[in-house]
Amino acid sequence: MTETARDNTTAAFRERWIRYTMDLQDRICRGLEQEDGKALFRTDEWQRMQGQGGGGRTRVIANGNFLEKGGVNTSVVFGQVTDTMRRQLGIDGEQWFACGLSLVLHPVNPYVPTTHANWRYFELYDGNGIICDRWFGGGADLTPYYLFEEDARHFHSTLKNAMDPFGTAIYPQYKKQCDAYFANTHRNNETRGIGGVFYDHIRPGDTMDLETLFTFQRANGDCFLDSYLPIVQKRSHTAYGERETEWQEIRRGRYVEFNLIHDRGTVFGLKTGGRTESILMSLPPRARWEYDHHPEPGSEEEKLLKACQQPVDWL
Amino acid sequence: MTETARDNTTAAFRERWIRYTMDLQDRICRGLEQEDGKALFRTDEWQRMQGQGGGGRTRVIANGNFLEKGGVNTSVVFGQVTDTMRRQLGIDGEQWFACGLSLVLHPVNPYVPTTHANWRYFELYDGNGIICDRWFGGGADLTPYYLFEEDARHFHSTLKNAMDPFGTAIYPQYKKQCDAYFANTHRNNETRGIGGVFYDHIRPGDTMDLETLFTFQRANGDCFLDSYLPIVQKRSHTAYGERETEWQEIRRGRYVEFNLIHDRGTVFGLKTGGRTESILMSLPPRARWEYDHHPEPGSEEEKLLKACQQPVDWL
Repeated sequence: MTETARDNTTAAFRERWIRYTMDLQDRICRGLEQEDGKALFRTDEWQRMQGQGGGGRTRVIANGNFLEKGGVNTSVVFGQVTDTMRRQLGIDGEQWFACGLSLVLHPVNPYVPTTHANWRYFELYDGNGIICDRWFGGGADLTPYYLFEEDARHFHSTLKNAMDPFGTAIYPQYKKQCDAYFANTHRNNETRGIGGVFYDHIRPGDTMDLETLFTFQRANGDCFLDSYLPIVQKRSHTAYGERETEWQEIRRGRYVEFNLIHDRGTVFGLKTGGRTESILMSLPPRARWEYDHHPEPGSEEEKLLKACQQPVDWL
Repeated sequence: MTETARDNTTAAFRERWIRYTMDLQDRICRGLEQEDGKALFRTDEWQRMQGQGGGGRTRVIANGNFLEKGGVNTSVVFGQVTDTMRRQLGIDGEQWFACGLSLVLHPVNPYVPTTHANWRYFELYDGNGIICDRWFGGGADLTPYYLFEEDARHFHSTLKNAMDPFGTAIYPQYKKQCDAYFANTHRNNETRGIGGVFYDHIRPGDTMDLETLFTFQRANGDCFLDSYLPIVQKRSHTAYGERETEWQEIRRGRYVEFNLIHDRGTVFGLKTGGRTESILMSLPPRARWEYDHHPEPGSEEEKLLKACQQPVDWL
């Protein structure tokens, strides 16, 4: 294979991933708008600042029937590898490319969980523009305010069913990684929610070839609406009052703490000139902090908290 | 001076600073309770975990007439210098000691500003237990939601008047440092509020001897109630509605962003096993995030924002 041919193949693969990502964004936004029945996504297309390549398509929604605030963002970005990237991301190479979709949905009703998902693809090039490294990352996780075990099982089993065709060892491993990643280490490793899956640096040749990895990513992205919407449909008409909203806001405070203190993408993005409003679309509409808050012993609030203090095997 | 004498002198100085700090905490809490007329401070005394020396006296208040949520904390802590401290704080030495007071007050009424202040003293010892470095740090800053220039002038001039007897070049320098420190770099250096003073690593011999530095710290700590309470008295009966509270919550979102992303003490404390509830007493009772929020052109909200986008010389 000549260099040109190799470059074409590379470009073609990138293009296929970009097309998939943009199409997935369309499908997810459409599915959410249909479910919501009131609010519509607003689109902001943005370009990176001069000297930096690419941009993104940020889509946000607010004040809907079920969605209080949310975003489903894509970006296609590339550039020179900087010293900060070498140091903080531990990467080598001269040029990089990244394309991914990232979503966070915060519902109005405290009985409907918040969810987050992300699927991404990264390429690194040497001085001749030839790929020297490439990997996929992704995951989806659920942050309920009240625990319904059947919802946890539905969410986790949907993810497992999408992954199992690629190897039954995958879901258990990525489930564990999710619990480990989304932990507020400053709160004794209390997790942000009840987990899901999280994976990063999955390279072709590790256990799957490039095409299989693409199929694997598609299986994950494609199952998102199936993993989440049935829970929305089941819970979004449950009556609630001030107590439930206060608890939702307290848990959303923990969500803010995780994202701003620990989340690698958020902190790295904000400190290296990422688009702040697109990154911080992940923050909840409102959060609350009370000194040394503890839910009532035996309450539904405590039941949720306990599931965050000790990760549960839902399946 | 013999080593023993030197040690006694050292211990005596530490003790005087500790006594001052605890007494200041008492006085500030009493002054705030009197002003509030409803809520009282709750005291939590805590010890550091095994193998780590010292502890603290956390005092928090909530749901008062003027104070929605606040804390006035002291701590007296010491221990071995760890690798993390060497790396992240750039310090040398074998043992360390620190004692300080830190306060954050979040009022109910959006016309009353949030305020923060901190005065601290740090000692480092060599392998023989002899002091090899010591310094003071501190400051106070104001975070209004609506801008009253006379309040900004009152706050800044009280700080300036406390500092001027020690040199008229001090206030302008520490005022600049405050604007530079409390900047949300991920929001184009928008400041958290309208500033105040901020200083760190002020060593005896730099411009003042140890005793003069102690007097300087006292002048700063002692003027706190005078800098803040007159503003509370002037603004806490101003009528407000949903619009003002929403704006207050949006600005409090920026406060959360600064504290969790950029504040050195917060991030270092949370990542190195500090007492989470005492550190996070600084967070507001509630915060709000809206995608790409901009206040109405020409509004009072925009006037405040502009003062945060371009630091003002208030005096």
